[in-house]
Amino acid sequence: MITSTSNPLVKRIRKLRQKKYRQEEGVFFVEGLRVVLTAVESRAPLETILYAPELLTSEIALAAIAAQEQAGVACVAVSAAVFAALSERENPTGLGAIIHRQQRSLAQLPILPNALFVALQDISDPGNLGTIMRTMDAVAASALLLVGQTTEVEHPTAVKASMGATFTLPLAHPTAAEMWAWAKTNQLTTVATSAHAPHVHWHTPLPRPALLLMGNEQHGLPADWLAQADVTVKIPMLGHATSLNLAVATAVLLYEFQRQQTGATT
Amino acid sequence: MITSTSNPLVKRIRKLRQKKYRQEEGVFFVEGLRVVLTAVESRAPLETILYAPELLTSEIALAAIAAQEQAGVACVAVSAAVFAALSERENPTGLGAIIHRQQRSLAQLPILPNALFVALQDISDPGNLGTIMRTMDAVAASALLLVGQTTEVEHPTAVKASMGATFTLPLAHPTAAEMWAWAKTNQLTTVATSAHAPHVHWHTPLPRPALLLMGNEQHGLPADWLAQADVTVKIPMLGHATSLNLAVATAVLLYEFQRQQTGATT
Repeated sequence: MITSTSNPLVKRIRKLRQKKYRQEEGVFFVEGLRVVLTAVESRAPLETILYAPELLTSEIALAAIAAQEQAGVACVAVSAAVFAALSERENPTGLGAIIHRQQRSLAQLPILPNALFVALQDISDPGNLGTIMRTMDAVAASALLLVGQTTEVEHPTAVKASMGATFTLPLAHPTAAEMWAWAKTNQLTTVATSAHAPHVHWHTPLPRPALLLMGNEQHGLPADWLAQADVTVKIPMLGHATSLNLAVATAVLLYEFQRQQTGATT
Repeated sequence: MITSTSNPLVKRIRKLRQKKYRQEEGVFFVEGLRVVLTAVESRAPLETILYAPELLTSEIALAAIAAQEQAGVACVAVSAAVFAALSERENPTGLGAIIHRQQRSLAQLPILPNALFVALQDISDPGNLGTIMRTMDAVAASALLLVGQTTEVEHPTAVKASMGATFTLPLAHPTAAEMWAWAKTNQLTTVATSAHAPHVHWHTPLPRPALLLMGNEQHGLPADWLAQADVTVKIPMLGHATSLNLAVATAVLLYEFQRQQTGATT
């Protein structure tokens, strides 16, 4: 059992709080009973499980650790004090895991007839990112494309907000040019939103396979994305403010795709 | 100009970071150019404007301060150092305001034929609360009812996320019993969500005037609310997770109310 905070593994996990080290190593650290068990259930590529026997009493968690150890995952016990020192929580549960980042190329993404992709451009808030991933899971979206200067899906806030979608939603990081070429080749309907669009989203057919384009929280979509999109819709805004929260706007559109697919006409 | 952080006004503003003092005094402090100007434009009941002439260069802001001073609002200059000491931001803009909390009784809320109210029960996350208020503004919802153990609309995170709706959206804090009696008397359609509801929200007529009931982030709606609601709908969940983020779920439902009102049948 590791009992020193100067142990190299402990120091490494603390470094993984920083984006720089996550990017360099291609791994990220998650902590908490729920998120680690979700990662296990989702068959996320675990590198190391870290657990504090003094803190961790859940039999389900202990059984999962035993099964992962048998499957060849490194399972390392640490003292409660060491776990507390590397935890970002007030009441650490004593379970964490180092997980390999997964990323696909666009060519690896299957294009089914009802495919629904989302591209986020320059998204800056990890809570928004995780919430969007959670909603994408709920509508069975196909994959997420992160384009430009974006926050990471492996940011702890994004992982938490995604409620497990971090481990199940396929992810690609294309350039904008690669994305547009891929969308055209595969005849995806590219859908953008703009306050100046002529039609409201629920009055506009949104045929699949489709790629929903969403822009930065402050600046929206760049002009050239808006110009290239096949369909531009607006979400009605009846109040004082001129925009919705990004995760809310994305959800409203994703559920409109979903509604149109069911042919609901209430 | 106040140059000491031990000035009573400065000490008072620092205390207002705590819910306890906000509740006791019935006021809250906001900072930032955008939020204070929005409060002014929305005719929020300002008590005091605090500004740091060394930091604040915006002519619009300086003109707004002059106008508010003429209108009888106390406008107090502080040094840049004092403003920085009470600011929660890394780069303080030098503008803040103490604002009176506004709260209405249910009897003060007009019931128009197309009224759409939202009741949040035991909501715990101020970011969700502010985001819901921002969406309510966008669909021109009538008023927000906060019931039970909830976070405050005056929490700095909620104020920020609301994008100004804090100052424009009518608010009441009824008990659950008062809310139900008011809803029945005024013949509001009470709408609840549940994963076990028989029908999907877009297949279910949602007639107004209506009261949308949303529960706590972790626990959802209490059983007696579900039992009493006129209409219970489910939002389709096609993925691994069993629920949406609360602000997302609320937005999906609010926009479905909106869609049904326009008769959209795409």
